[in-house]
Amino acid sequence: MELGMIGLGRMGANMARRLRRGGVTVVGYNRDPAVTRQLAQEAGVQAAETVQQVVQKLVPPRLVWLMLPAGEVTQQHIDAVAPLLARGDVLVDGANSYYKDSMRRAAQLAQRGIKLVDAGVSGGVWGVHNGYALMVGGDYDAVRRLETVFKVLAPAPDKGWLHCGPAGSGHFVKMVHNGIEYGMMQAYAEGFALLKSREDFGLDLAAIAELWRHGSVVRSWLLDLTAEFLKSDQTLADIEPYVADSGEGRWTAIEAVEQGVPAPVMSLALMMRFASQGKSDYGDRMLAMMRKGFGGHAVKPGKKD
Amino acid sequence: MELGMIGLGRMGANMARRLRRGGVTVVGYNRDPAVTRQLAQEAGVQAAETVQQVVQKLVPPRLVWLMLPAGEVTQQHIDAVAPLLARGDVLVDGANSYYKDSMRRAAQLAQRGIKLVDAGVSGGVWGVHNGYALMVGGDYDAVRRLETVFKVLAPAPDKGWLHCGPAGSGHFVKMVHNGIEYGMMQAYAEGFALLKSREDFGLDLAAIAELWRHGSVVRSWLLDLTAEFLKSDQTLADIEPYVADSGEGRWTAIEAVEQGVPAPVMSLALMMRFASQGKSDYGDRMLAMMRKGFGGHAVKPGKKD
Amino acid sequence: MELGMIGLGRMGANMARRLRRGGVTVVGYNRDPAVTRQLAQEAGVQAAETVQQVVQKLVPPRLVWLMLPAGEVTQQHIDAVAPLLARGDVLVDGANSYYKDSMRRAAQLAQRGIKLVDAGVSGGVWGVHNGYALMVGGDYDAVRRLETVFKVLAPAPDKGWLHCGPAGSGHFVKMVHNGIEYGMMQAYAEGFALLKSREDFGLDLAAIAELWRHGSVVRSWLLDLTAEFLKSDQTLADIEPYVADSGEGRWTAIEAVEQGVPAPVMSLALMMRFASQGKSDYGDRMLAMMRKGFGGHAVKPGKKD
Amino acid sequence: MELGMIGLGRMGANMARRLRRGGVTVVGYNRDPAVTRQLAQEAGVQAAETVQQVVQKLVPPRLVWLMLPAGEVTQQHIDAVAPLLARGDVLVDGANSYYKDSMRRAAQLAQRGIKLVDAGVSGGVWGVHNGYALMVGGDYDAVRRLETVFKVLAPAPDKGWLHCGPAGSGHFVKMVHNGIEYGMMQAYAEGFALLKSREDFGLDLAAIAELWRHGSVVRSWLLDLTAEFLKSDQTLADIEPYVADSGEGRWTAIEAVEQGVPAPVMSLALMMRFASQGKSDYGDRMLAMMRKGFGGHAVKPGKKD
Repeated sequence: MELGMIGLGRMGANMARRLRRGGVTVVGYNRDPAVTRQLAQEAGVQAAETVQQVVQKLVPPRLVWLMLPAGEVTQQHIDAVAPLLARGDVLVDGANSYYKDSMRRAAQLAQRGIKLVDAGVSGGVWGVHNGYALMVGGDYDAVRRLETVFKVLAPAPDKGWLHCGPAGSGHFVKMVHNGIEYGMMQAYAEGFALLKSREDFGLDLAAIAELWRHGSVVRSWLLDLTAEFLKSDQTLADIEPYVADSGEGRWTAIEAVEQGVPAPVMSLALMMRFASQGKSDYGDRMLAMMRKGFGGHAVKPGKKD
Repeated sequence: MELGMIGLGRMGANMARRLRRGGVTVVGYNRDPAVTRQLAQEAGVQAAETVQQVVQKLVPPRLVWLMLPAGEVTQQHIDAVAPLLARGDVLVDGANSYYKDSMRRAAQLAQRGIKLVDAGVSGGVWGVHNGYALMVGGDYDAVRRLETVFKVLAPAPDKGWLHCGPAGSGHFVKMVHNGIEYGMMQAYAEGFALLKSREDFGLDLAAIAELWRHGSVVRSWLLDLTAEFLKSDQTLADIEPYVADSGEGRWTAIEAVEQGVPAPVMSLALMMRFASQGKSDYGDRMLAMMRKGFGGHAVKPGKKD
Repeated sequence: MELGMIGLGRMGANMARRLRRGGVTVVGYNRDPAVTRQLAQEAGVQAAETVQQVVQKLVPPRLVWLMLPAGEVTQQHIDAVAPLLARGDVLVDGANSYYKDSMRRAAQLAQRGIKLVDAGVSGGVWGVHNGYALMVGGDYDAVRRLETVFKVLAPAPDKGWLHCGPAGSGHFVKMVHNGIEYGMMQAYAEGFALLKSREDFGLDLAAIAELWRHGSVVRSWLLDLTAEFLKSDQTLADIEPYVADSGEGRWTAIEAVEQGVPAPVMSLALMMRFASQGKSDYGDRMLAMMRKGFGGHAVKPGKKD
Repeated sequence: MELGMIGLGRMGANMARRLRRGGVTVVGYNRDPAVTRQLAQEAGVQAAETVQQVVQKLVPPRLVWLMLPAGEVTQQHIDAVAPLLARGDVLVDGANSYYKDSMRRAAQLAQRGIKLVDAGVSGGVWGVHNGYALMVGGDYDAVRRLETVFKVLAPAPDKGWLHCGPAGSGHFVKMVHNGIEYGMMQAYAEGFALLKSREDFGLDLAAIAELWRHGSVVRSWLLDLTAEFLKSDQTLADIEPYVADSGEGRWTAIEAVEQGVPAPVMSLALMMRFASQGKSDYGDRMLAMMRKGFGGHAVKPGKKD
């Protein structure tokens, strides 16, 4: 079993390591050759210095996995790799690509006999040890050929991956997964913030998170992580209250609107992140001015920005 | 027709002015005697130096209007004035008091034959010219006796005030009014923020607000005010994005929960104000840490606080 | 001044009437010739039996206004009319088209020297009497040529219309306008529902709506309408609790996500409409099953659908 | 170690079973003596026919655990049991009581030397096997005396229970726990509804839930339960889309408002339950009428109710 892995960042490198430990031959490429060399030494990955070399080193029909940031970078690499591939080759996109892009790309590549498999990958930095949950979309035969790879990457060979449906469906399921993740995270954040606000009880948030891990209805892996970082510091005083967001959270909110399905929790979780980024500042200034306008309420001169 | 007015702040003073113009005799009191004297000169209000004097100067059965901040200050003055009043006197609370407090107070005062009328007053600083919308709760006869007063205060004698129902109902209707106000304000703020975010269109927000005042579905008095302040400065760069909230907004949200009636717009409008006050910072720090925990995403060291 | 009006439904016919009263020559077309004939008789509109006739009856450079449902119908008519037009002609789209479509269409038509003006029209069925608020995007010269038309349609010649910016900006401003409308409507609906839920107060909702129209902070045109229909029946028992939604509400919510601007009130107002349409039923079934799963809570057998 | 258990419903009976297995002597009482007798036979619980008997059968200083529905029933039993207890006895309230009630009750009982311990119990019907997460508030010495009991009830002796703080803090932490639970449940429900809405992908929701249990970021115990019930039927066609709510969800939402802490996800999760209960119907009728009012949009005659 052999596979080309293009992109050896945090995710790609860890996946290559896990594949190597599972006996898969990996031809790896990273834009920084030092990263590739390092992984070659450490994990026995075959180093390629260009994407061309990745393709050349693989025996057709090939399996090539792109593990790159979604969007432009992934598009550029598909554009670069696809012309080098032959009929029957399989290209996997492991990024958090927009599922509509994956549907479009799969249709385009299919015209040349190349099969695009969209694989949503969950598990984060812990996946190298625990395995990754893999949500896979695409052609049946192409997915079959990847089965060994998926079994090695997944936490349990027959449980941690799923062929969800046709092209795009893997990234779609991953997108919704991340939407749920946003909602769960916000639920915990609100809860702990409420616990903290009740200062008179002097609650130990780290101890509560740890307790909830055992036997409570809200136990989860996200709570495991939360309990862990609260242990070392529950004031979080050194952390900026700025929460980044990414494509999948936004796409899930948009999908809900397009499908006409209420998703208030997912949408609000996203919007509170926008607010944390200062994106409600103009609206808030307007509200302050309106209050002044009808009630004569004082407005503070701007100092926040 | 004569009335005691206790509390001559922004609202109380303006109401006294309007009452005077309407031919009502007003005995006024403010904790700062200079304010009372000024209003005596300017508007012919009879100055009282103590609340006792207010009561003494009025011929029973008396009408005494409290126009004070809701909460402790209003409670203190009710406690101080009530013992001075006699059976048949009417006490009006024009503050934004919690309607449950008004129900309780009315029941207590009724035991001594004193009637509490709860009057929610809307109209802000403009009411002195435009008149005030008055939402009135309480005993039928007590409200009848106040009819002349209400007609003078209201923008149109028979249209701008309403005897809503029993004690507490006036403040209840005012509370819900303010909840609606929160939702409307937030709707406008979100809309203008969206207009502003589309920088490539180079929109003139002041002109759009002015346009919408004429013939559009969203025309309203709040929009009139908004158009006004946008005219002088639509960058709002000098305004801090901090939005205060007050009792009625919170009580409306709580009422919705207690009644089991969905009020997402009112509740979210309130919560976005909390967020503007920095009250989501701890939760946001947690979210940043969770993202780091599972995805290895960078966390910015705190600098906002 | 002459103008072709394609589409004489509720909106188009009323606009044609108002234009005729303002002295504008109108060549009208509707897919149902009976409608066109009726308007010809009633308002002196020149009847055209085909879109070709509309174009033929106008002296170049022409002004042709499409007043059709947004989406496919509008696209079809643009596709049908555009080839008949000549360099220098102006086509107005008065539908609630997606502003991104308008940007694209304007660019395409510009290649043939035809100018697309996007005109967002607010005012509903009342516009024929009150005038319409018009939010206009497009080429400066094209908009100039329409000035007389806009002045007749607007409630006040120089106040009820605005050239907002380049192509698409008119429909963009209209889209946001409708997003605000959703939020305001939901705010009122929540408020009146809360008033009603407090049955012990026996509140007269029609009287309260009427009161609020006079001097209150929440007075608005939407409240005027609300007061009107509450007068005849405040139980609303004959009305199905089903709230339709339309493109602009959805696009505004999507725009907020794409711009990263928090718009919780607009988004929730939309989602509550989805819920009224039964679109939360599957999620609600899941919640009922989860409650059963962990707490043994009873689940009702389905009867709602 | 001996303990009185008043209330042998689903929760109380299971807790008694677990305590018996852990070697604790349990004197049990239920209003239905048949239930008590059954549990005596099955698990060796000592049957009491009245609450008096429970108290009499225990050697002072006693431990008496109330496991009853929160609210009136719990209050009635506290009122009945407390006079029978002596200085030094400990009364545990295992219900989901409002933490403010628990604070008040603890203060009242303390005047007579009786210590109230508030114990929030999570784990549902699975707790008898898995153990319960216990969130405990109250006097240090009283909690100490219960340590053995808590260790038997918890899933791991030193991990599944926590003395959170003073009286009320146990129920407070449990309340927030349930608020988080509401948010998480709603996040999953929204996600699966979105998956289902994309019918063209033909997704197997049961398989996706099962997949996510392994290695994904959203794995949790609630997901375990969800995967379980989706296995037997993922259409949920037999389930009514009606989601009940309970005290803690409402109290958490109210707490957030009172503390001024944004909790949009918790609050919206609650309000969507209200909506599932038909509580947004009046507001929706108003919205339908407003749309008709300004746009002439058709309103469906009522048929839903």
